[in-house]
Amino acid sequence: MRIAILIFDRLTALDAIGPYEVLSRLPGAELAFVAKQVGSKRTDTGALGISADRSLAELADPDVLLIPGGEGNRPLLEDVEVLDWVRTAHQTSSWTTSVCTGSLVLGAAGILEGKRATSHWVYREALREYGAEPVAERVVRDGKVLTAAGVSAGIDMGLVLAAEIAGEDVAKAIQLGIEYDPAPPFDSGSPEKASPELVELIRGLEGAEAEASG
Amino acid sequence: MRIAILIFDRLTALDAIGPYEVLSRLPGAELAFVAKQVGSKRTDTGALGISADRSLAELADPDVLLIPGGEGNRPLLEDVEVLDWVRTAHQTSSWTTSVCTGSLVLGAAGILEGKRATSHWVYREALREYGAEPVAERVVRDGKVLTAAGVSAGIDMGLVLAAEIAGEDVAKAIQLGIEYDPAPPFDSGSPEKASPELVELIRGLEGAEAEASG
Repeated sequence: MRIAILIFDRLTALDAIGPYEVLSRLPGAELAFVAKQVGSKRTDTGALGISADRSLAELADPDVLLIPGGEGNRPLLEDVEVLDWVRTAHQTSSWTTSVCTGSLVLGAAGILEGKRATSHWVYREALREYGAEPVAERVVRDGKVLTAAGVSAGIDMGLVLAAEIAGEDVAKAIQLGIEYDPAPPFDSGSPEKASPELVELIRGLEGAEAEASG
Repeated sequence: MRIAILIFDRLTALDAIGPYEVLSRLPGAELAFVAKQVGSKRTDTGALGISADRSLAELADPDVLLIPGGEGNRPLLEDVEVLDWVRTAHQTSSWTTSVCTGSLVLGAAGILEGKRATSHWVYREALREYGAEPVAERVVRDGKVLTAAGVSAGIDMGLVLAAEIAGEDVAKAIQLGIEYDPAPPFDSGSPEKASPELVELIRGLEGAEAEASG
C-alpha cells in the first residue's frame, strides 16, 4: 500500500500530518511525502520545515494519493506538471483524497466533475467552479474520492480510509493508539457552532489570504 | 511570546504538529522547533522529516516550552544536556507543557514532583516514578505545567493554552480556522471506550516498543 502525500511551500501542516499519523500506522503502509522537488518545504506559518523525500516522477502511481491544503496550493491550480501528476495518479489509484483546500487541486485536475465533495468551510462553495457539488460534511466519499473539511478533518478522514483499507478493527486500534478521543475545550469548530462575529473574522482572514496568494 | 517545541529523532509527529497548528496562529507568536542539533529529525515511522531550526542553546528561555512524545524521547530521560535545558527553561517559562510521553521528560527533569499530570494512557502510571500523581484526563493543569494525554490530545491542549494566553475568543477563532469540530467515525479513542482486546493489543505494542528503546 503505497501512500503519497503531496507537499509544497506554504502548506498547512496539520492537513498533511493528521492523516499521516493515522495512515502510516496501517500494516504494510509505505508512506512518502512527495513534491515537485525533493527537499524541505516551509509551512504557511513559516515556522516549520517538512521534508519531501520523493519527487513526483519517482512516485507516479501511488495506491493512495493525498493532497493537503494551505495557501501554498493555490499556485498548483495552474501548475501543469502537478495537475498532470494528480490526473495520472488518479487513473490507477485505489483512493484519491484531499484535506481542506486540497480539494481545489483535485477540482483543477478535473477529478471532481459531477462529484460530491467538501473543503474548508470558507472555500466549500468554490468547488462549484470545478463542477463539484459542495457538501457540508466532515468527510465526503464519492466512489474512490474522499475529501475532508478543514485542517483537523484529515484525522477523521484518515480513520475512515484506514477502515476501508484494513477493516474497522485496525482503524479502531489506530484510534486508540493515538488516543483520539477528542475533547475540545470550546464548541466553536464549525460556522454553524461559532459566533457570527468569529465566522466573519475567519472568512475575512481567509478571503484576504486567497486574494494575496492569487 | 516565544514558543519552543523540542524535537528529536523518532518523535511522534502529531504530538508536536497538533499544538503547533494551534499555537502558531496566536497573535505575536514566535514558534520554533528546537533540538540538540539543528537539522532534520525523522519521526517514529521513518516516513517523515521535520526540521529543527534552532539549537537548545539558541533558545534557552522560551515563554512556552513544549515536549512531545514518541519512542525517541526515552534516551532523553538520561540526557543531561536536554534535562538541564528543560529545567532551566522551566525556571523562567510562563508555561511548561508536554504531549503524550513528553511528560516522562518533564518528570525526569524533576518538574512533576508532587504535581498532577497525564501522559499517553499506556504510560500514565509510569509518572509515579517521578513523584507525579497520574490523572486520567485529556489535559491536566497544575500551576503553569500543562500535560496532555496521547498524541492527538495536543490539539485540545493547544486550545486550552491559547485561551490562557490570548483569551477565549482568540482560541475559539483558531478552533474555527482549523475547523476543529471532530467527528471520529468510531468511538475507540480511550481504553475506557475501546474493546478489551484492542486495549491489550496496544498495551502490548507500546510495551514492546518501550522495552526495545530501553
